[in-house]
Amino acid sequence: MIFGAILFQMKPQIAFILTGGSIDKEYNSLDKAFTVGSGAVERVLKLVNSNFDAEIIPLFQKVSVDITDEDKAVICRTCTEVSTDKIIITYGTDAMTDIGQTLVGIENKTIVITGALKSQLIKDTDAEFNLGFATAAVQTLPAGIYIAMSGRVYSWNGCRKDMETGQFVEK
Amino acid sequence: MIFGAILFQMKPQIAFILTGGSIDKEYNSLDKAFTVGSGAVERVLKLVNSNFDAEIIPLFQKVSVDITDEDKAVICRTCTEVSTDKIIITYGTDAMTDIGQTLVGIENKTIVITGALKSQLIKDTDAEFNLGFATAAVQTLPAGIYIAMSGRVYSWNGCRKDMETGQFVEK
Amino acid sequence: MIFGAILFQMKPQIAFILTGGSIDKEYNSLDKAFTVGSGAVERVLKLVNSNFDAEIIPLFQKVSVDITDEDKAVICRTCTEVSTDKIIITYGTDAMTDIGQTLVGIENKTIVITGALKSQLIKDTDAEFNLGFATAAVQTLPAGIYIAMSGRVYSWNGCRKDMETGQFVEK
Amino acid sequence: MIFGAILFQMKPQIAFILTGGSIDKEYNSLDKAFTVGSGAVERVLKLVNSNFDAEIIPLFQKVSVDITDEDKAVICRTCTEVSTDKIIITYGTDAMTDIGQTLVGIENKTIVITGALKSQLIKDTDAEFNLGFATAAVQTLPAGIYIAMSGRVYSWNGCRKDMETGQFVEK
Repeated sequence: MIFGAILFQMKPQIAFILTGGSIDKEYNSLDKAFTVGSGAVERVLKLVNSNFDAEIIPLFQKVSVDITDEDKAVICRTCTEVSTDKIIITYGTDAMTDIGQTLVGIENKTIVITGALKSQLIKDTDAEFNLGFATAAVQTLPAGIYIAMSGRVYSWNGCRKDMETGQFVEK
Repeated sequence: MIFGAILFQMKPQIAFILTGGSIDKEYNSLDKAFTVGSGAVERVLKLVNSNFDAEIIPLFQKVSVDITDEDKAVICRTCTEVSTDKIIITYGTDAMTDIGQTLVGIENKTIVITGALKSQLIKDTDAEFNLGFATAAVQTLPAGIYIAMSGRVYSWNGCRKDMETGQFVEK
Repeated sequence: MIFGAILFQMKPQIAFILTGGSIDKEYNSLDKAFTVGSGAVERVLKLVNSNFDAEIIPLFQKVSVDITDEDKAVICRTCTEVSTDKIIITYGTDAMTDIGQTLVGIENKTIVITGALKSQLIKDTDAEFNLGFATAAVQTLPAGIYIAMSGRVYSWNGCRKDMETGQFVEK
Repeated sequence: MIFGAILFQMKPQIAFILTGGSIDKEYNSLDKAFTVGSGAVERVLKLVNSNFDAEIIPLFQKVSVDITDEDKAVICRTCTEVSTDKIIITYGTDAMTDIGQTLVGIENKTIVITGALKSQLIKDTDAEFNLGFATAAVQTLPAGIYIAMSGRVYSWNGCRKDMETGQFVEK
């Protein structure tokens, strides 16, 4: 079965493209402000004795509202140029569908956009769960652009963030 | 597309069948011993504002070597009787393929066996990542019996635990 | 020895007066802002099987720069009126000496002002250490007004926060 | 005031003598057993931007029942020889009074014995609180041998561990 053959291949290559968002927020105790870093994915992968090859590509350290059209073009180009066909993008939760739209047209790659409602540095973060979720999704889904949040896989334009609850729901 | 229609259905129902294993180990500070509990899945799901329905079924609180043939029959019967076709079993990491074998023959259900190398109560646990991973796998994979560990999906008889590293690798 | 007799008395009564500050900052994932709560002390005391009586008095949920003169008068009155002579005040780290000055004149009570550079909800917080530190200081020091930060006890007007490092150092 | 002069001295020197115990238990996920390490104090001190000099002396990695009379002699000699008069000993909680007795006779030093009911690696550990507590106690108490547990300072022979609750109570 071709599907199985692909699924169970040796050592998948997964690219993690980092753009910022709440998942990578860091609290600066000196000026008492949140800044955006880029260490969340690396810290989480260290917890897991993972049997895949991860390429971590830190592009931006921004909240999603600060991502410009130029930034989006860089993200898009990076997705195209990276050698693997399995890509996870960490992104701010407020504009995930925006970045999804930018990526439409990329062929033959499975791109999963994820993030977290709470910084990976916070005790009760959803970052570890969400990154695990995205890591399975990117290996099991056919080529396409997806958002993986709230324990669900959505097509990039099939969901919205409920601003009252923070939950990603069907559009 | 039927695949997509199934994937993006409203509110998936996921059954979590708990049998014990390291993921649910608890440290008893009085007699200085590990016991096996059943709270890991519930604690992890609380972290995630999840948009699926979870049914948590605590069957056993055992390490995998203590699971008897009778216990396996109970697990098998529970998988058959539970109304949903999406089942995650938490299980000790030392005998995951054993329980997989027991379940062969269950039709039309996606059964994902997972667990953790370190208790969910330990700071640098892999439990949150693994449960997130299994939660995506159970929604995206066709019917079958799978082991989801080390950031990989394996068929139930396609992997083994490397006893030197703890990593689940191809058989 | 009178000192020993006081020190080793049965069940000390300790009042925790909460005013806010970074120790009690909570991240609101919906509007992506920090708010100030009042749960840190209670969460920390739950970790410890403590053999003293704690009275938790939540007065304010403010950062220190928002504490008004009226608020300070309330804190001062609370210290005077509370029945115990062992008082820990959690306070924002930027204005700890200010509140210390307000309390000068309270007789026969040991008042220890503490807090944290990082919220108790953050994984690598200093909150648990600092609260443990203050809990010992309040039981062992003679009556007076103290600041307990950076693993040190200072008289209320004997230290300053180094704004470059966050460390409390001798004035 | 001499008391104040000592208390508020510049940069106290604190020696942390590590002997093992639950505070330093580590879970070995491969052979599924607890071993005893020596990293707890260093990890906790990293959380605190502390303004004292810490000398960490790892002597043993044992649970308290495995500490021999020879080991006790080594601990005693280390306390005598270390240049500072402020010493914290981390020790297993089951035999803290035993080690206290060994140290009787050491003059002019404040020795505080502490530990934790739960390993510092467990999410809801008491290790950070207890180490903060001991760090204040060692700076504020007169010379003597003390046990600092359960949020209390006891003379070394003034307390016992309640084996039902884990709490350290008056003898």
